[in-house]
Amino acid sequence: MAIPTHLKLSVPETEHPRIVIIGGGFGGLKLAKALKKVKAQVVMLDRNNFHTFQPLLYQVATAGLEPDSIAGPLRKSFEGHFNYIFRMVKVTGVDFEKQEVQTKIGNLTYDYLVIASGSVTNYFGNEELQKKVLPLKRVVHALDLRSHILQTFEQAELTEDYDKRDRMMNFTVVGGGPTGVEVSGALAELRNHILPSDYPDLNFGMMQINLVEGSDRLLNGMSEKSGKESLKALEKLGVKVRLNSMVESFNDGIIKLNDGTLESDSVIWAAGVKGNIINGINAESLTKGRILVDEFNRAKGQERVFAIGDVAMMQTEDYPDGHPMMAPVAMQQGTHLAKNFKRLFSGKDLEPFEYFDKGSMATIGRNKAVVDMPGGLHFKGFFAWLIWMFVHILYLIGFRNKLITLNNWIWSYFTYDKGTRLIIRTFSAEQRRKVSQYE
Amino acid sequence: MAIPTHLKLSVPETEHPRIVIIGGGFGGLKLAKALKKVKAQVVMLDRNNFHTFQPLLYQVATAGLEPDSIAGPLRKSFEGHFNYIFRMVKVTGVDFEKQEVQTKIGNLTYDYLVIASGSVTNYFGNEELQKKVLPLKRVVHALDLRSHILQTFEQAELTEDYDKRDRMMNFTVVGGGPTGVEVSGALAELRNHILPSDYPDLNFGMMQINLVEGSDRLLNGMSEKSGKESLKALEKLGVKVRLNSMVESFNDGIIKLNDGTLESDSVIWAAGVKGNIINGINAESLTKGRILVDEFNRAKGQERVFAIGDVAMMQTEDYPDGHPMMAPVAMQQGTHLAKNFKRLFSGKDLEPFEYFDKGSMATIGRNKAVVDMPGGLHFKGFFAWLIWMFVHILYLIGFRNKLITLNNWIWSYFTYDKGTRLIIRTFSAEQRRKVSQYE
Repeated sequence: MAIPTHLKLSVPETEHPRIVIIGGGFGGLKLAKALKKVKAQVVMLDRNNFHTFQPLLYQVATAGLEPDSIAGPLRKSFEGHFNYIFRMVKVTGVDFEKQEVQTKIGNLTYDYLVIASGSVTNYFGNEELQKKVLPLKRVVHALDLRSHILQTFEQAELTEDYDKRDRMMNFTVVGGGPTGVEVSGALAELRNHILPSDYPDLNFGMMQINLVEGSDRLLNGMSEKSGKESLKALEKLGVKVRLNSMVESFNDGIIKLNDGTLESDSVIWAAGVKGNIINGINAESLTKGRILVDEFNRAKGQERVFAIGDVAMMQTEDYPDGHPMMAPVAMQQGTHLAKNFKRLFSGKDLEPFEYFDKGSMATIGRNKAVVDMPGGLHFKGFFAWLIWMFVHILYLIGFRNKLITLNNWIWSYFTYDKGTRLIIRTFSAEQRRKVSQYE
Repeated sequence: MAIPTHLKLSVPETEHPRIVIIGGGFGGLKLAKALKKVKAQVVMLDRNNFHTFQPLLYQVATAGLEPDSIAGPLRKSFEGHFNYIFRMVKVTGVDFEKQEVQTKIGNLTYDYLVIASGSVTNYFGNEELQKKVLPLKRVVHALDLRSHILQTFEQAELTEDYDKRDRMMNFTVVGGGPTGVEVSGALAELRNHILPSDYPDLNFGMMQINLVEGSDRLLNGMSEKSGKESLKALEKLGVKVRLNSMVESFNDGIIKLNDGTLESDSVIWAAGVKGNIINGINAESLTKGRILVDEFNRAKGQERVFAIGDVAMMQTEDYPDGHPMMAPVAMQQGTHLAKNFKRLFSGKDLEPFEYFDKGSMATIGRNKAVVDMPGGLHFKGFFAWLIWMFVHILYLIGFRNKLITLNNWIWSYFTYDKGTRLIIRTFSAEQRRKVSQYE
């Protein structure tokens, strides 16, 4: 993409130290908010002008919510923050020697750098697969997936080759973590309640929803109980779950697994994420693909560079392989690092980060969930779903998003309806790759 | 765009006559709904799977609403209609001799054809302009325009060339009809209430919003009073209205008018629409670019072909140049034609169409409108805006759309906030043209 030559990355010079934050995700957002009254110039760089509430992306993908419900403009979140500067740019590299962040429209020096670049979809090096599967990590992915799902059924009605039609109507989700479980549950609800009346000529009794997971259980990050209950709930919804199963290849609607074959034109890839590493961070700084940080989130061997959230690897006694790559860790590290900046600026010693595990949860279908709380407390079913709803509404940014989302959920709950079944991005996989060059 | 070879346009054969409707706009939708109990196979063809409530497109473009509020899935609208078949295809032509509709994936024969293809943006033959300006006629246009507006300000903050920055921040709307008036009012509200806090580094006192209209008044289709009041209200909001002014060229941010020059990188084209004519309809059937129909909406010289709405030209005593190209005409013609189909099938004579003018309205900014009612009744200001709101909510399809839209409007009214300031389609003009090949 040609960059207009008149664009230059610049921010005013001030007497205060400049903290550059790469990324406006959960970590970056919390950090910048908590720096409100700190005497520093806070510069946030993000390629999007909005924060994405990723836990609900799957609802955008399955026609339950529009992006405005789960994404919030980053500038709006900082009204009244006079030390905050936002620049919508994609960071292309960092240079620790020169203390600068690099972008296609110029470089920016920092006094302190916080890398909060989050994570990207992990294809485990399989470039062939990457070209063919549908990821679900960004708002554009969710919108593409939604259009793809609906377009598939429009096209299935126009297909008289019945073998082809069967393959078109089958959906396969790879990865049995929260995203995989949630998206396959939502697909099952679409099949069971919505699609049959929209497409009366298609036989939805034939539509398979497959969930393929490499390990021997679902929801690996959660309790054994949650894994079993989600499996049971998904099977009740008609999802075919395959455990201990790995994708070897995917060609022309045939998915080869280590233990069999599936026929399915659409593969949704929720198999994992990896740290979003920026050019200029050398291999020695990385452990398992994440930036190794000390207990203050300071990058190994660096004085002025910090990393928080998914991209950071902090090895502690409780988490020798780093913390789980999820929103609560990023948020707590963001808040904690802000406190440490305050201590730093007033000459005090930094305090080590400690993760407070508030529990984790996943929803299955329209009114079930599993919730693990600290101390082994566990909920399932409808009550767990109420907790899930409450917590997600609570953490959504801004009152407006809360209102619109709650509205949508109440509506869907009572009517079984999903309102946003609009095919707006009618791209094929190949076109999508071309379009995504621009995005 | 390569069409997958497995796609074929087909519908089941039945004993009943087949009515093919091209287009699911206001006319096609009303017609198909009213044919619910008629013994005919109703086949609707549309390139989109949704109906667009075009009068509110400008709110999608100016970050007030998401598409799901103003568009409704066409299949969903016909739940319980057992004689209704929807196919998402783009019609490429018609052959009156063979009685068939042509598409890229095959042809479909009809017993009766209703052309309800609506209208498209009219560039008055200026192909150079067409490549550079921003249209506002479809959902994708509105989303592109929204992203363009927001991206412009993101980039303006990254521009140190102050002349360039000024041109970037100026917006010019061409066409003083309802769309032009409404979009310039909404832009003014964005400038006055929203953008300054989002972009503190930019000087919005410098931002021009120009409205260029070729005739000597605004809202030509409405009363003299409405024209004057909308002009006054727009000027109060800070819109620079130029009457009797025509665009001659637009290059590198310079708009040449017949009576002057404007500097503005963004030109929103709302100068007019023309009938969306399909290949195979020959020039003799057309009058002023619309399909000439008799008082029963039957195309001139055709027994089995009808046209309704914007694309139809019915010359009556009251409307010697045809009816205005607006939703109420299309809706009434759709309903009326359904009644005539019933008469036709029971061997009765057709009844001529008569347009019942319920009035027209336009909104200016956040809480003003002008309303012309039959019999010269006229309202303006806040009360007119309440009527405008009520009528638009009333005509929105589906209870869910009404609810979400009302919610959004109440929210925006009290907070001056627009929630959907997300830049999702970050295409440049050139990229947009490439992407639109796929859409």
